[in-house]
Amino acid sequence: MSIERADIRALQDVLHHEIPLSQQIGLVAEDYDGECLALHAPLAPNINHKSTAFAGSLNATATLAGWGLTWLLLREHGLRGVIVIHESSARYELPVADDFVATCRRPPEHAIERFLAALRRRGKARLALTVEILDAAGRVAVVFTGSYVAFIELESERQG
Amino acid sequence: MSIERADIRALQDVLHHEIPLSQQIGLVAEDYDGECLALHAPLAPNINHKSTAFAGSLNATATLAGWGLTWLLLREHGLRGVIVIHESSARYELPVADDFVATCRRPPEHAIERFLAALRRRGKARLALTVEILDAAGRVAVVFTGSYVAFIELESERQG
Repeated sequence: MSIERADIRALQDVLHHEIPLSQQIGLVAEDYDGECLALHAPLAPNINHKSTAFAGSLNATATLAGWGLTWLLLREHGLRGVIVIHESSARYELPVADDFVATCRRPPEHAIERFLAALRRRGKARLALTVEILDAAGRVAVVFTGSYVAFIELESERQG
Repeated sequence: MSIERADIRALQDVLHHEIPLSQQIGLVAEDYDGECLALHAPLAPNINHKSTAFAGSLNATATLAGWGLTWLLLREHGLRGVIVIHESSARYELPVADDFVATCRRPPEHAIERFLAALRRRGKARLALTVEILDAAGRVAVVFTGSYVAFIELESERQG
């Protein structure tokens, strides 16, 4: 099994175990190629009065896509920590009338390096991520930005 | 039964019927006094890895509080229409370690009048709303703003 395949399975388990609502949403960690994470959700449990996807489900899925990418970055660098979202914004540009996919791309390497350096130095760092939700035709239906904060226990704190 | 009491029961039915995920979230339309709508949700189905409320659940509940207040305003003025959210932002300021309540206050009367006038003239209008989520101690844990768009069928369109 490739590293990415193992990563996506581990992420799926973590999401379903740690955030039970992700099971109600029907979330499936679908793909991670080392560059872009894709979370899939079916329309049925997330449907609204217009027979399209409920904005709250879209937002929750986008929130988890950014959380998941941050989790994968920590794992890739052998770090374990707690990740929370501090703020987010979302534009709902098109209704989503079918199953949907939330994609979160790795930020530029310099942003990742700055994030990891701050995390190792201070035990806490912030990462800004963009998530797009695509409809079945591949059009961008939702644009989401999230500011995530990761916390790790520093070596010095464990010893002290 | 007071008007507000009848309104809140009707809203509860609409939310559970039209947005099934609101049932998974355990959402209860708790109170509407004509000024402020309060939606309650239990922690258990919305819990996350830190034993606090999942940001996606908080966001979905806030989204529905703004949607609900818009629905109540239309109903109060004898209008029926479709309401969607166009954009939103959320700041997660404090973790929510217990059941929570999302409150959405009526905007100033001049904003409501402008919204209703545009709606009757063009069949479409936008309303900006703020939602706060309070933790069990009554502190503001999440500040959410949403831009909602309502659509109604105009008399002229029905006749034409």
